[in-house]
Amino acid sequence: MKTFAIILAGCGVYDGAEIHEAVMTMYAVTKNGAEYQIFAPDIAQHHVVNHLTGAEMPETRNVLVESARIARGKIKPISELDMREFDALIFPGGYGVAKNLCSYAFDGAECTVNPEISNVIREAVSLRKPIGAMCISPVLLAKIMGGITITVGPNEADAVNVKAMGANHIATKHGDVIIDEKHRLFTTPCYQLKASLVEIAEDTDAIVKAMLKNG
Amino acid sequence: MKTFAIILAGCGVYDGAEIHEAVMTMYAVTKNGAEYQIFAPDIAQHHVVNHLTGAEMPETRNVLVESARIARGKIKPISELDMREFDALIFPGGYGVAKNLCSYAFDGAECTVNPEISNVIREAVSLRKPIGAMCISPVLLAKIMGGITITVGPNEADAVNVKAMGANHIATKHGDVIIDEKHRLFTTPCYQLKASLVEIAEDTDAIVKAMLKNG
Repeated sequence: MKTFAIILAGCGVYDGAEIHEAVMTMYAVTKNGAEYQIFAPDIAQHHVVNHLTGAEMPETRNVLVESARIARGKIKPISELDMREFDALIFPGGYGVAKNLCSYAFDGAECTVNPEISNVIREAVSLRKPIGAMCISPVLLAKIMGGITITVGPNEADAVNVKAMGANHIATKHGDVIIDEKHRLFTTPCYQLKASLVEIAEDTDAIVKAMLKNG
Repeated sequence: MKTFAIILAGCGVYDGAEIHEAVMTMYAVTKNGAEYQIFAPDIAQHHVVNHLTGAEMPETRNVLVESARIARGKIKPISELDMREFDALIFPGGYGVAKNLCSYAFDGAECTVNPEISNVIREAVSLRKPIGAMCISPVLLAKIMGGITITVGPNEADAVNVKAMGANHIATKHGDVIIDEKHRLFTTPCYQLKASLVEIAEDTDAIVKAMLKNG
């Protein structure tokens, strides 16, 4: 049985992991006969957003502790992730990826990536393990790796940014999975486009299936 | 198109709505050709639990604000729910149901139900709208209504409690939906049993299908 390492960035689209993408990734992995272990960095969130109003809240929350809500407590700090023990690495999206795992939300193409995240990605690359990234999370790959081909959906501003980081960008719609065979990368847009949960389920199923088939 | 009112109790199994059940309910409603609006009470959570350690955290959080994470902001206070505008009412589970929507986690059969929640359930009953409840949330129905038939899964202690409230209880396994035709109630165990996300998806699909067919 193949095992995926799923990386979360908190719990909630505006300051953490996008919950629907995270749950549907876990569902797709299970449904396709594989299993998963969830990881997150043990760091403070960039900030806390009230998801009802959009306003910043005067609180601090921890990315690992909040990600544990999606994982029902079955989660490990990313410092314990050894990619030699896993067959694939996958990143659901959400603004938390762009705020907590890297600084893309604030710095665009000039962003920096959390060192634990970049180490894990570099380790997966060096081991030739397939890496999946959905929604905005392909920016992590664009920043760390050179000359890759990815999608961040149809968003022109994000496309300009990943091109500025040196990536080739392909605009996509729901159901599309961009496969960079050379680098073993799999990317799909999810909530980079308006979506229903049926479309998110289809996108996550498509990326997981592609990783299992070609990874 | 049929429209479900989905009631959430926060965001996270130990102090709020069970996230997998909530997302899979939204998915099942959409997949089966219906639509939904999410509601939650605008009240403080009973407490905040660190989902990594299980320890109580010295924080306060609001049920509506945290539920908005699962809803991606598309949520309304339950005070705005008029059951005449909806075809069905459904409650995903999680300890938040037993801690925030009622006091079952602390008081068992002697629990009290939040007045806004009991009003909505009574309104749905009086309008003969189907009501679905998964996991531990059937305790709400047992407390409010007399002589109903429900399941809270195979858990003996919970079965004893709902019987003490006057309900008939049927022990169940995954995929079972107990239908009380007289009262138009639909209940299924979900995480009252050890479950994979595939089983949660099957349970939520089964209850939504049963509500659409018989509701």
